[in-house]
Amino acid sequence: MHKQYLLTPGPTPLPPQVQEALGRPIIHHRTAEYRALFKRVQQGLQTVVQTTQPVVVFTSSGTGAMEASVCNLLSPGETAVVILGGKFAERWKDLCAAYEVKVIPISVSYGEAVDPQQVREALKAHPEASAVFSTLCETSTGVVHDMQTIGSIVRETNAVLVVDAISGLLADECRTEAWGIDALVSGSQKGLMLPPGLAFLSLSPKAWKRAEAAKSPRYYFDMRAYKKALVDDDTPYTSSVSLVVALDAALQAILAEGVEAFLKRSALLANATRAGIQAMGLKLFAKRPSNGVTAVRAPEGVDTKKLVKQIQDRYQVTLAGGQGEMAGKVFRIAHMGYIGAFDLLVALASVELSLIELGASVTPGQGLKAFQGLIGAR
Amino acid sequence: MHKQYLLTPGPTPLPPQVQEALGRPIIHHRTAEYRALFKRVQQGLQTVVQTTQPVVVFTSSGTGAMEASVCNLLSPGETAVVILGGKFAERWKDLCAAYEVKVIPISVSYGEAVDPQQVREALKAHPEASAVFSTLCETSTGVVHDMQTIGSIVRETNAVLVVDAISGLLADECRTEAWGIDALVSGSQKGLMLPPGLAFLSLSPKAWKRAEAAKSPRYYFDMRAYKKALVDDDTPYTSSVSLVVALDAALQAILAEGVEAFLKRSALLANATRAGIQAMGLKLFAKRPSNGVTAVRAPEGVDTKKLVKQIQDRYQVTLAGGQGEMAGKVFRIAHMGYIGAFDLLVALASVELSLIELGASVTPGQGLKAFQGLIGAR
Repeated sequence: MHKQYLLTPGPTPLPPQVQEALGRPIIHHRTAEYRALFKRVQQGLQTVVQTTQPVVVFTSSGTGAMEASVCNLLSPGETAVVILGGKFAERWKDLCAAYEVKVIPISVSYGEAVDPQQVREALKAHPEASAVFSTLCETSTGVVHDMQTIGSIVRETNAVLVVDAISGLLADECRTEAWGIDALVSGSQKGLMLPPGLAFLSLSPKAWKRAEAAKSPRYYFDMRAYKKALVDDDTPYTSSVSLVVALDAALQAILAEGVEAFLKRSALLANATRAGIQAMGLKLFAKRPSNGVTAVRAPEGVDTKKLVKQIQDRYQVTLAGGQGEMAGKVFRIAHMGYIGAFDLLVALASVELSLIELGASVTPGQGLKAFQGLIGAR
Repeated sequence: MHKQYLLTPGPTPLPPQVQEALGRPIIHHRTAEYRALFKRVQQGLQTVVQTTQPVVVFTSSGTGAMEASVCNLLSPGETAVVILGGKFAERWKDLCAAYEVKVIPISVSYGEAVDPQQVREALKAHPEASAVFSTLCETSTGVVHDMQTIGSIVRETNAVLVVDAISGLLADECRTEAWGIDALVSGSQKGLMLPPGLAFLSLSPKAWKRAEAAKSPRYYFDMRAYKKALVDDDTPYTSSVSLVVALDAALQAILAEGVEAFLKRSALLANATRAGIQAMGLKLFAKRPSNGVTAVRAPEGVDTKKLVKQIQDRYQVTLAGGQGEMAGKVFRIAHMGYIGAFDLLVALASVELSLIELGASVTPGQGLKAFQGLIGAR
């Protein structure tokens, strides 16, 4: 009976119109009604992804669209530069290994953003590289990479730039076409305010050329089949009808606000959250922080696993702990999608109270005051 | 404002408790609450699939789990026997081709079931075959194959038997473990009464040995990762939370009725539908008809595309037409999942009325009378 607050970087809370759309009676997917809806969804996705190219909708987790980028764009034995620095960046390395793609890693310390010049140097040292893989926002560290500069470097080469924007889309700026991103991967359960279960992949003409020629085995994730079906506003395999109907509702809400306004709101909330955290005397983990998620270093002597559990058990506020190497060392607060300013106020209050309960030295109200001061400017 | 009736072989209508579960606020997937739910779902799926082995849940269309069967069980250059006879059987052939698996096809005329002796002969002639691929119910023709006999033949060999039961599960009898089915594929939008978006794959110990050793590239569909995560009642990639919560609701309803009773009901409805269709003077397309879907031959001079459209436009009853080669020649009525006897009565009435409107010679009420006579025995 206690009121629940979900502030994790995926899944994010569902707006009421999305919940309503999910619970509707099912409709058949090979009908004029569904095709019209799918066409509208396609146009909305293009606006959100900031591209004029098709945005393919997969029924899968985000990882499925990441795999699609590897198997559609590369053949066994080819070489790819992979920008590391977190759990999700490492998934690119694992995916390349699964498809026998040679990896040129660019090491990045956890919490830091890649220096774009390292990408330039890696491509100069490896002119045979066919692709550069990166995350936009590395969800595990809260870092956003400078994709605009990286895009300007990669576009001068034969390589394609593949970007995991699963948590970054609709939180951090991402001008896919303008910045020269050749493959943009995203998912439904972050800025798009839907349950998990849909993934998206949009390719540039440069990337489509690779998709027509790549030799890696693929079927369910074969982009050529999706492109062909899109001509009739259709999918090659049964569409995840309820999630797509809900996506339509979410896109209508996003387009009504406008992508620029939506991003501005994320930036404001991220900024206020960072101010609140720092006013509590805590330190940000990311050197170049994302507007989608704030990763916070544990205060001296506090295990963030315990902290996150305390916040959950005592205040029913769900935050995220650290993943992999960062377990116990950081906790993360999301400010994307349907998470509003007063949800974040609640989250900061629960952090303050729980830290005090765990014996950390925090002056009550400092975080809330700093946060409130900035959201007033909205 | 017109009342809609959906009687297609996927998606099938959603029961109210499934609609309600879909529209609930989202919960996080890495929590004790979700793990407990996922564990319960796992047990329910094992009961439905009739196996003691794990049932892996993919976020994908059924085709994803079909691909998983190919890439987890076979290596490039291996040989597989593929039982043909419909659109979905042909997908096995295409999937094998995508993974460089040599195909020994067993041709089956559309509308006929395979003679299990042909499988015995194919395996004798090709002792190197590593797998036999079949459908349980071929959704496009309404045929159910004799999987029990085929299972008894394949289990004497080194090959694994892989069965697409996407539309057959919970409609036709399918004793996965008892019959020696080594890989059972299914999907959410048929007998399980959910929206599309989840797919299932369960492997026998014989198949798991192949999954540990197969050399085909795979990542998102790699069964080893799902097996490892299942130890903690978890999934390796973000779970399709809302659909899994709805699956829990659907499984509770199915288990409350009991799998045997559920199948008996499908059999009764299928039998009554076939009687109704024949009493109208129409002919069944399938020689060995499935209890999930009835395919009906077009009466002389009637194009089933026109008939299905007439039934939709005039009576808001959604039936399925023919797929591929059978377009225009057959129409299909589903009796699976949440489709009840009186939904089928409505469907038969709409068929009768529309046939008369299209000028076919049908005596009004004959189909309804025959149908009603049989469902009274329920």
